[in-house]
Amino acid sequence: MNPLVKAVEYAVRGPILLKAGEIEMELQRGIKKPFTEVIKANIGDAHAMGQQPITFLRQVVALCTYPNLLDSPSFPEDAKNRARRILKACGGNSLGAYSASQGVNCIREDVAAYIERRDGGVPADPDNIYLTTGASDGISTILKILVSGGGKSRTGVLIPIPQYPLYSAVISELDAIQVNYYLDEENYWALDVNELRRAVTEAKEYCNPKVLCIINPGNPTGQVQSRKCIEEVIHFAWEEKLFLLADEVYQDNVYPKDCQFHSFKKVLYEMGPEYSSNVELASFHSTSKGYMGECGYRGGYMEVINLHPEIKGQLVKMLSVRLCPPVSGQAAMDIVVNPPVPGEESFEQFNREKEFVLSNLAKKAKLTEDLFNQVPGIHCNPLQGAMYAFPRIFIPTKAIETAKAHKMAPDMFYCMKLLEETGICVVPGSGFGQREGTYHLRMTILPPVEKLKIVLEKVKDFHIKFLEKYA
Amino acid sequence: MNPLVKAVEYAVRGPILLKAGEIEMELQRGIKKPFTEVIKANIGDAHAMGQQPITFLRQVVALCTYPNLLDSPSFPEDAKNRARRILKACGGNSLGAYSASQGVNCIREDVAAYIERRDGGVPADPDNIYLTTGASDGISTILKILVSGGGKSRTGVLIPIPQYPLYSAVISELDAIQVNYYLDEENYWALDVNELRRAVTEAKEYCNPKVLCIINPGNPTGQVQSRKCIEEVIHFAWEEKLFLLADEVYQDNVYPKDCQFHSFKKVLYEMGPEYSSNVELASFHSTSKGYMGECGYRGGYMEVINLHPEIKGQLVKMLSVRLCPPVSGQAAMDIVVNPPVPGEESFEQFNREKEFVLSNLAKKAKLTEDLFNQVPGIHCNPLQGAMYAFPRIFIPTKAIETAKAHKMAPDMFYCMKLLEETGICVVPGSGFGQREGTYHLRMTILPPVEKLKIVLEKVKDFHIKFLEKYA
Repeated sequence: MNPLVKAVEYAVRGPILLKAGEIEMELQRGIKKPFTEVIKANIGDAHAMGQQPITFLRQVVALCTYPNLLDSPSFPEDAKNRARRILKACGGNSLGAYSASQGVNCIREDVAAYIERRDGGVPADPDNIYLTTGASDGISTILKILVSGGGKSRTGVLIPIPQYPLYSAVISELDAIQVNYYLDEENYWALDVNELRRAVTEAKEYCNPKVLCIINPGNPTGQVQSRKCIEEVIHFAWEEKLFLLADEVYQDNVYPKDCQFHSFKKVLYEMGPEYSSNVELASFHSTSKGYMGECGYRGGYMEVINLHPEIKGQLVKMLSVRLCPPVSGQAAMDIVVNPPVPGEESFEQFNREKEFVLSNLAKKAKLTEDLFNQVPGIHCNPLQGAMYAFPRIFIPTKAIETAKAHKMAPDMFYCMKLLEETGICVVPGSGFGQREGTYHLRMTILPPVEKLKIVLEKVKDFHIKFLEKYA
Repeated sequence: MNPLVKAVEYAVRGPILLKAGEIEMELQRGIKKPFTEVIKANIGDAHAMGQQPITFLRQVVALCTYPNLLDSPSFPEDAKNRARRILKACGGNSLGAYSASQGVNCIREDVAAYIERRDGGVPADPDNIYLTTGASDGISTILKILVSGGGKSRTGVLIPIPQYPLYSAVISELDAIQVNYYLDEENYWALDVNELRRAVTEAKEYCNPKVLCIINPGNPTGQVQSRKCIEEVIHFAWEEKLFLLADEVYQDNVYPKDCQFHSFKKVLYEMGPEYSSNVELASFHSTSKGYMGECGYRGGYMEVINLHPEIKGQLVKMLSVRLCPPVSGQAAMDIVVNPPVPGEESFEQFNREKEFVLSNLAKKAKLTEDLFNQVPGIHCNPLQGAMYAFPRIFIPTKAIETAKAHKMAPDMFYCMKLLEETGICVVPGSGFGQREGTYHLRMTILPPVEKLKIVLEKVKDFHIKFLEKYA
């Protein structure tokens, strides 16, 4: 067996989810538990938590799937127009034909137009857009191309700690060197460029740090980076000739009024040609998050800036081997970047649905922060963005010792107990990385408000009992 | 840049397709050519060639996409029942939720039931079924897990020559050792177990041959393996403790009356417990080929037999990192394995559509063989299965020299000339591998009959002129 594969870890669907599956089976077999259902707050899976799909997106994809519906009076004209345009760009006018390896042309054009609007007119070239099978696929592919060298010249990839474990998994699989930089928990999980500098300086002793991964808004940490921070990071990447990977899949998920999403691309261009013509950047987006939550479609795109033409050629070749991203996911991506606009028949309903999801998420972000911070021994930074809470949990020494006796990380022990006693499935902080001696958990805020309140109350009760038990 | 990535080649979407794209652009810009359109016979992309989707499959996927349609009287009840069942098995009853990493449970159950029916009752366990993002994804993932060792103990992967270039691409990316075994062109491209033995024996000098890849029906060669041949291969794999990868994506594409598809799984079980409890096997299927040709959905499955539980765990982990295969592709796969049955409302139309596609393919297979064999300097084996012709083409010495002067493989030179002069895009045999000094091309037989005749006439005229020019 491949030792690199063996070394891969992926906590979001790791042992805790296997255990959750076992418990669900036991419940089905009628085994009595102190709860009646398992609540999977381990993964950002909006629809599984009851969020409804955006009607317009589904109408367009259904029309593309079964074009007979183009004659049906029950579909709005704007949806039909979108579907006709997508089908016209597909081989044989069918979602069943392979698309170009880079994705359907007109969808890449729509992505470029979306980026230009988002970034206040900074130009975007459809040739730089690659549609992907979710953001994960894009991130893995670009990392695969960039990694090289052996020994001390092996590529080092800088990732935030805490991170989303796709990064550590891919780095491990590629036998690249993971270089950690720590986000500042005391300062709302901000990225401090001095910490980046420390990480790069130390890494140069044992590898060739070449790639810098940023997750903004943060997963699992939920911070939204300030414009100033992004400028500093770009300047640092320019100085150190680092390739920037900007994971921006939560760009629509920003909640407090005083926070705003700034794309790395926009800031890069606003910093002037010295930066915008030199710093290599790939940024990622997806159908899975935002207000649409279409995880199952595996739609996504990446935009690359200043990529060497030879690397671009390699990228297309590697995408070609897998033929193309799922075309229905590409169609879904098109609606994310090209939604109804004011004046179109579907605009009002679309906007109502979108605002409903986003305002609820904002409410739940605040609720979660507030409720966690009422619990003794739990501290939760504000959830400025994304869809997770990553509170710090105090674990008593006796519990840490018990965990170690079970050969478990203390926060894994905590999360397992939480699952067994309440049916709530969350992921231990150790799956994302955390400063030595600190413990966390990641929980999604996706359950509906009333259910989320119950979940948080249950976590509170569990935590208080846990503290008592291991006092 | 990763040198392993640089070494990857994928001819089906290689330089010839880039050139075809350039020519299409020139045609669009009004540049005059001796033809008015580029015909992309380089890839098995049925819908792009005008094949119509199977109505029932699209109805079910549309119903799953936009469940409001479940109330519409214009959809048949059997399609609605399929859609309701799939949705019930999805998180939040939505195609937009992530599925389990291994795929939606009820779809895996349907796959297992399909395999049992196909294999005359040989049992299939849903736990052994993994839904994938097309067959390519399954093949890459399993190879990634199996490859290990360094130097002389590096894993050797046996592949047929000619092969489908996904295999060489993945082997190259994984830095595994490609071990070629040659199919016997003089004997309808049959697989000779003596040739397998030669290949393994020689390979043991420089690597650890551990995996044996079989493509049946053959791509690009179109042969259908006899039951006897499969038995011999399984016996050989058992003797040599080889892991069998059976690429069976063309299992529905078998044309002559005296040919029959035998799955490796079925033959393995029929050979008795000594084999069926020991030989490790993974077999692959897809929504992309057969009579449905739904390439764009990226649906597929693999069934694994005798996989060690630890490797199974690793497999689920690696699939988890990518979260799940596209759920709409999983739904499409469900209809491939669970189509309407006699007595159901949609059966008649489904069956008519299926037979139309398959009988046309059979007709085109014969037509292609016959027409190619009328051309002096072209020899084409019978197309027993799949959807390609792989004729041997005689290239005169003068043309070989000209090609070499252009630093091109002689058959690449030939195919480039064919593309430039006729607009027909096919792939040179060198992209699939062929015996030294022989030349071939791969062409799909997917264009509609009348168009295919024109294509074949054009190839004939081109070939005759080519022979004259380089005589």
